[in-house]
Amino acid sequence: MTRADRWMLPDGIAEILPADAVQIETLRRRLLDLYHSWGYELVIPPMVEFTDSLLVGMGRELELSTFKVTDQLSGRTLGIRADITPQAARIDAHSFPRAGANRLCYAGQVLHTRPRTPMGSRAPIQIGAELYGVETLGADLEVISLMLESLLAAGVQQIHLDLGHVAIYRSLAQVAGLDDEQWRELFALLQSKASADIQRWVADNVSEPRAAVWLRELPRLAGGRECLTHARELFDGAPAPLGQALADLQRVADSLARRYPAVELFFDLSEVRGYDYETGLVFAAYTPGHGQALANGGRYNGIGAVFGRERAATGFSTDLVALNTLGREAEPEAGAILAPAGDGEALWCAVEKLRRQGEVVIGALPDGAEGELLARCDRELVLENGDWVVKPRG
Amino acid sequence: MTRADRWMLPDGIAEILPADAVQIETLRRRLLDLYHSWGYELVIPPMVEFTDSLLVGMGRELELSTFKVTDQLSGRTLGIRADITPQAARIDAHSFPRAGANRLCYAGQVLHTRPRTPMGSRAPIQIGAELYGVETLGADLEVISLMLESLLAAGVQQIHLDLGHVAIYRSLAQVAGLDDEQWRELFALLQSKASADIQRWVADNVSEPRAAVWLRELPRLAGGRECLTHARELFDGAPAPLGQALADLQRVADSLARRYPAVELFFDLSEVRGYDYETGLVFAAYTPGHGQALANGGRYNGIGAVFGRERAATGFSTDLVALNTLGREAEPEAGAILAPAGDGEALWCAVEKLRRQGEVVIGALPDGAEGELLARCDRELVLENGDWVVKPRG
Repeated sequence: MTRADRWMLPDGIAEILPADAVQIETLRRRLLDLYHSWGYELVIPPMVEFTDSLLVGMGRELELSTFKVTDQLSGRTLGIRADITPQAARIDAHSFPRAGANRLCYAGQVLHTRPRTPMGSRAPIQIGAELYGVETLGADLEVISLMLESLLAAGVQQIHLDLGHVAIYRSLAQVAGLDDEQWRELFALLQSKASADIQRWVADNVSEPRAAVWLRELPRLAGGRECLTHARELFDGAPAPLGQALADLQRVADSLARRYPAVELFFDLSEVRGYDYETGLVFAAYTPGHGQALANGGRYNGIGAVFGRERAATGFSTDLVALNTLGREAEPEAGAILAPAGDGEALWCAVEKLRRQGEVVIGALPDGAEGELLARCDRELVLENGDWVVKPRG
Repeated sequence: MTRADRWMLPDGIAEILPADAVQIETLRRRLLDLYHSWGYELVIPPMVEFTDSLLVGMGRELELSTFKVTDQLSGRTLGIRADITPQAARIDAHSFPRAGANRLCYAGQVLHTRPRTPMGSRAPIQIGAELYGVETLGADLEVISLMLESLLAAGVQQIHLDLGHVAIYRSLAQVAGLDDEQWRELFALLQSKASADIQRWVADNVSEPRAAVWLRELPRLAGGRECLTHARELFDGAPAPLGQALADLQRVADSLARRYPAVELFFDLSEVRGYDYETGLVFAAYTPGHGQALANGGRYNGIGAVFGRERAATGFSTDLVALNTLGREAEPEAGAILAPAGDGEALWCAVEKLRRQGEVVIGALPDGAEGELLARCDRELVLENGDWVVKPRG
């Protein structure tokens, strides 16, 4: 590496400079304060854990996303976290167990070995909230509402909410009698929304006639609330969990439509999510002009079992950096006050007082090294009749 | 790993649970606001960089402290940051160059392969500020003052400030004509404060008579401001940089004594710091009953040269987690309001209004799963004559 390119950053790894950093910090505080006001308690999990804790039950994609290093103290493998959710689940199950509901929130950098999307970030700042210990739909509704509140607080104007339920594919796969390999094959096809391939695959692999019809129809079950009505008719006679999933989607949709009439609801019943640790209702929020989900989440009951405490769980998270680029306009920066160089007590007291009042006071250094910072100072501290007073800078 | 111990964390890696997390978050905001009010601009550097950028010119200790992984996209080595200072220096030199002074601040987790002290943390939350582009002593004084303000803002009661200057050992080693290996040997002895070993080593290695006296006396030059007077007499005739270092220490001490009369000043002229990238005045703050430095920093001119822009630099940092354990007492948590389960619009509006006013409102879930959270709720929202009102909980 030559001297000239030592400043290069790895692909997908960004540094955040002052103009953006101050906005991201403001948004971070606003969201953590929002979660606090809903009773969610902040936890700060570490950047690394044993992979045995970090990756357990979280699926293959998370494992491939996780950088691994050897711990010099124990000789065991550590993972740099690629997702904070499993850490929150571990905390709920073991370190901070509560009887009944446990509401946790967090914010921190995570790291991915590869970007999830082409040109995507490998170092998002994940912020989110998780609700443990509650099985009912009220918990899902609370978490989805808090996710929508987060986007509104960030100034996202048009929100498009995608709802799905993993019991739909699970139930259909069961009726079709898919083995593990078939399950994964069809799952991959559904993930890539490859409709023609799905038709062909179902014709080749599924002999049970009702299941074949249902699986072939599944990719078409996407759209507004009318698609729930269509699904209820189509899946008449399907296993009970599928019917329950449709009923749950309907109830959540009804509540959300009342609470957030401006949010556009969209259903995709063939939606299968990447990490495959979800067990129930799943959701993702989009905004026009931005291809990736702005925030997403879902129910993932049972994750705590590996830590010795099986718990109901639902939650969501978002990337502060991405959210910041979509939210409100940059506010013009407030001007600063230039204080002259000097070491007198009266000057020092005047400067300290202004800073405590919320002003930015930049102390000029003896050799006048302030350079372009002077442009930031619209006022200055000057001595007038023995008192230090703030005056506009000429 | 059995099911029961999957929750274990690696040695020196801690998770921060709600009671501490909320205090650390409060302290984090208070310090970042303080730095903002002094004109320091926030940057958010990434958790990983190429080791070529992260470790260059930073000395062997930082290299050994840094976890390394292979970047799957470039095949090159990435380091998980063990110190944010070199990242800030890179930003000043390249990404955010300013003519003249550049004031940057940051806060984030760092990771060390091994704890710096027995039982120490391997995952501190480093927060600090750096001032680039200013050579004068005014910059050192500003940065030391801001470090002291940070400790005061954290509620640290008794502050003990240790001041030193790397030009002292450098000048003496030059007079003594030490070669690189001798330089490192004596450096290690000074680091371990092994006074008898130093006497023996100097007798065996240093033939220049004045240098031998000076080096033998060096470990004794520790104490209050009187030790500067003693040093000026002892080092009469030493190279000019040594005399300048003593004069700088004296000037900084005089200013600090006026600004912070309650801070106890201590000089250790044989102090040599771990990372050995410092080039001038170095400083560390202590508090009684806590063996490790609470915060430290120093001047490290020239670090930007490897990024194509050589700059004067001085700064400090501290660990939010350690600082939090020493600061103010936990404030009693404000109570929360329990809102009944339900989906009515009037209830939803009442809850939202309270949250916007800064109240914590916990929504009871339909199956009464709140469990022990009920104890946090000292008030509840009840319907009275058609209005939702807040009442004490019986």
